[in-house]
Amino acid sequence: MRKHALATFVALNMAFGAYAAEPAKPAAPAHHDALDYEHQEQWQAAHDKSQSPIDIVTASAVDAADNEPRALQFEHTRGAVDSVEDNGHAVQVDTHATQATIRGRHFTLAQFHFHAASEHTLDGKHFPLEGHFVFKAQDGRLAVVGVMYDVGAVNPVAQEVLNDLKPKKKKAKPAQHEIDIEGLLPKSRGYYHYLGSLTTPPLTENVEWYVMPAPVTMSKKQIDAFLSHYRRNNRNIQPLNGRPLIRYEG
Amino acid sequence: MRKHALATFVALNMAFGAYAAEPAKPAAPAHHDALDYEHQEQWQAAHDKSQSPIDIVTASAVDAADNEPRALQFEHTRGAVDSVEDNGHAVQVDTHATQATIRGRHFTLAQFHFHAASEHTLDGKHFPLEGHFVFKAQDGRLAVVGVMYDVGAVNPVAQEVLNDLKPKKKKAKPAQHEIDIEGLLPKSRGYYHYLGSLTTPPLTENVEWYVMPAPVTMSKKQIDAFLSHYRRNNRNIQPLNGRPLIRYEG
Repeated sequence: MRKHALATFVALNMAFGAYAAEPAKPAAPAHHDALDYEHQEQWQAAHDKSQSPIDIVTASAVDAADNEPRALQFEHTRGAVDSVEDNGHAVQVDTHATQATIRGRHFTLAQFHFHAASEHTLDGKHFPLEGHFVFKAQDGRLAVVGVMYDVGAVNPVAQEVLNDLKPKKKKAKPAQHEIDIEGLLPKSRGYYHYLGSLTTPPLTENVEWYVMPAPVTMSKKQIDAFLSHYRRNNRNIQPLNGRPLIRYEG
Repeated sequence: MRKHALATFVALNMAFGAYAAEPAKPAAPAHHDALDYEHQEQWQAAHDKSQSPIDIVTASAVDAADNEPRALQFEHTRGAVDSVEDNGHAVQVDTHATQATIRGRHFTLAQFHFHAASEHTLDGKHFPLEGHFVFKAQDGRLAVVGVMYDVGAVNPVAQEVLNDLKPKKKKAKPAQHEIDIEGLLPKSRGYYHYLGSLTTPPLTENVEWYVMPAPVTMSKKQIDAFLSHYRRNNRNIQPLNGRPLIRYEG
């Protein structure tokens, strides 16, 4: 079944003849699904099949296999803030200290930012805010950890971010203070994982997504303060197109 | 620097204003690099920036960081052959038994096939043949291990593949014998790693590449036998576009 799924994947946009059962016949010099290597510029690429965000249909998720590392481990969550700014499409905090071991591999946090309402949905439900913690590995692989924020207790770390936004900070004073993202992450490290894309242009499909379903609270006033910057900066839900959705309970 | 590289990556196709140093000014209600969330269909996606194959410029490779799992470990290399066929664009062996732990994560071999001449080049040099061992993980991630074949001693496992191709096998007899891909892999498990694509349509950019530079031998007669199926089925070299190239000595 796994083989079949791959064959289908590879055969997309190609004739399916070679993969279908067919009567034995002599090998022909030209196959009907041959690729013309002398005119590669005519090859058709498939695009935009693995985009983000998605609706996470929790009943369709499969449990993460237990024969590989599954945990999200955040290390050195406290680090210097390089900048906090409203960059024109999101409130974003640039930092470089937080490290993470994501399913065994080493990543460094580049920045985190907030979308309103949430970009991912859980069984169709939006949260008021979603934070995206953008990690990068040595080979260029991006892994984004998505965190849902809901109305509840005041979030002291979110307040630090908001305080840095007003009055508008000059870029001349970087690294004057530190932030500990631990307070922006849920205690439960469970996640839904799938392969997707950036949710803003260039929408590049080089992103491993880890969406944590346990919401973190902010006060109504804090959420309204984020909404005063962007009342809507969430991309529309994209089709899953058969991609596996993996659940890890944490 | 890492932060900067990511910012550049994310900012591609967008105005760079928010990332550049700029004088302090009052926050404007409309930013010149704002995204129009009410007209997302107009967003520009960047495509085909991370394609395969590439020329591996060995002097430009950086050593794999030692704070994460790096090894390619092949497990159960002997497994049943589901089919061996000339599928119209390559000689391909479908199998499903071989497992691999690739940098800590679990993959299953779906198929392997051969390109002539090699698709990847090492400092501009082609080898007569390149084998692609296509592995798939639970989340749909593809990892392809590329192996270079050069003229030398007879390769008994390659001969098994060639024997299965003539006379043309009927599909009615799968799994009648086993193959051990160990004989098609170099003893040195060193590799060059980068993020790329399928090299045939749909050219999907969801592929981790592991190109093993230590060649494996086949006899001249064996290589000619593969060439009798395809004298040329290798895609042109694609631009690296700044992607990291990682070296692991094995």
